[in-house]
Amino acid sequence: MDVKFNEKGLVPAIAQDEETGEVLMLGYMNEESLRRTLTSGEVWFYSRSRQELWHKGATSGNKLLVRSVWKDCDSDTFLVKARPLGPTCHTGNKTCFFQQLTEKDVS
Amino acid sequence: MDVKFNEKGLVPAIAQDEETGEVLMLGYMNEESLRRTLTSGEVWFYSRSRQELWHKGATSGNKLLVRSVWKDCDSDTFLVKARPLGPTCHTGNKTCFFQQLTEKDVS
Repeated sequence: MDVKFNEKGLVPAIAQDEETGEVLMLGYMNEESLRRTLTSGEVWFYSRSRQELWHKGATSGNKLLVRSVWKDCDSDTFLVKARPLGPTCHTGNKTCFFQQLTEKDVS
Repeated sequence: MDVKFNEKGLVPAIAQDEETGEVLMLGYMNEESLRRTLTSGEVWFYSRSRQELWHKGATSGNKLLVRSVWKDCDSDTFLVKARPLGPTCHTGNKTCFFQQLTEKDVS
């Protein structure tokens, strides 16, 4: 398969709500999580902290149902368009990107 | 600043078309490219291959004008909502994510 996994065998994977367009989170996939994502219809990541396959939402119920999977021009990033079954973020927010940065943060 | 740069001093940054919601590309930012992005209103990445700051679109004209910048719950990924001045991808596609993966790619 023409995918460039990094030196740790991982590729960053962006999850996007297919219906609203909202970017939900960024996770990492190894080859096995990509395989499971493409064959099961549910998103699987690889947890870098726990160093194991991570079936997103298996515990919380907040799964991501796969609508389509894309790779970028360099074949080193994935985009997964999905239907979220609940809030994607462990904080309870719909998206993990709820903290805005401004010029003040770098001054 | 509460941002977790990785062991290479970088953070993945997703660029999204604020108007259409389309995910355009994923690049990497170091602290200086984040600073320039937040203060200049145009997106700056760090090129991992060239190992230098990369003012997106400075050569091609296909700049990304910053609308807002967000960090995720773990403070280790950025989302930049932007207005693209042309096709974002060097291939001429509007988005870098134009190649779909299917079950056949992992069988």
